[in-house]
Amino acid sequence: MLKIEHIGIAVEDLKAANELYKNLLGSEHYKEEAVEIEGVVTSFFKVGDTKIELLKATDPDSPIAKFIEHRGQGIHHIAFEVQDILVEMDRLKKLGFTFTKDTPSRGADNKLVCFVHPRSANGVLIELCQEIPA
Amino acid sequence: MLKIEHIGIAVEDLKAANELYKNLLGSEHYKEEAVEIEGVVTSFFKVGDTKIELLKATDPDSPIAKFIEHRGQGIHHIAFEVQDILVEMDRLKKLGFTFTKDTPSRGADNKLVCFVHPRSANGVLIELCQEIPA
Repeated sequence: MLKIEHIGIAVEDLKAANELYKNLLGSEHYKEEAVEIEGVVTSFFKVGDTKIELLKATDPDSPIAKFIEHRGQGIHHIAFEVQDILVEMDRLKKLGFTFTKDTPSRGADNKLVCFVHPRSANGVLIELCQEIPA
Repeated sequence: MLKIEHIGIAVEDLKAANELYKNLLGSEHYKEEAVEIEGVVTSFFKVGDTKIELLKATDPDSPIAKFIEHRGQGIHHIAFEVQDILVEMDRLKKLGFTFTKDTPSRGADNKLVCFVHPRSANGVLIELCQEIPA
């Protein structure tokens, strides 16, 4: 685990949330990006060495829509940057961690991503992400 | 906002959670500290430029005990480091943010801390913290 790459926050209204985090952080979001396979649109803010990722559902059956339906808006996941996502998944599986999917998929921000199941991490949804080489 | 100083995670069993995060992060927690006024004991892990703070209630009426009662274990807050907590509180109040208390108090890890009310931040509990000068 190299560092906390970002913190994902589920929001209902991306425009309003962009304004709120601009006020809070004192800086604008630097990009928006849709991840169609996850049914979300994302917005990114830089903070020091890490990022805030706002997540708004674009599909009522998406994980973010269901998260908000069950728990309301709020912190959705912590993402850790790793050098080699397959090596790290293998290491964690051997330690008893389970994953929501068996293989990484393409996420926002040019990353391969996978998620440790919250059941195996005290209720916390943990993302591993690896930059996709150019 | 200088950086994300730490992410606070509410846990039921600190010993088990220390073991889980040691496995996840590949490093041990570097300290434990009780914050009696908040009715919690905390445990800290370094990750890159930031920290994970595990929080276990020591008092059934503490905010962490109530959080777990209502929502279960999970991510509790994001803490941003600021240079001057009073200046930052004043700036945010003028922008419409409200705080859980009017003045900062002493938190774990030699910090002055205050919390933006989740009602004014899309359901996210945001801590501001400032290192207490030696």
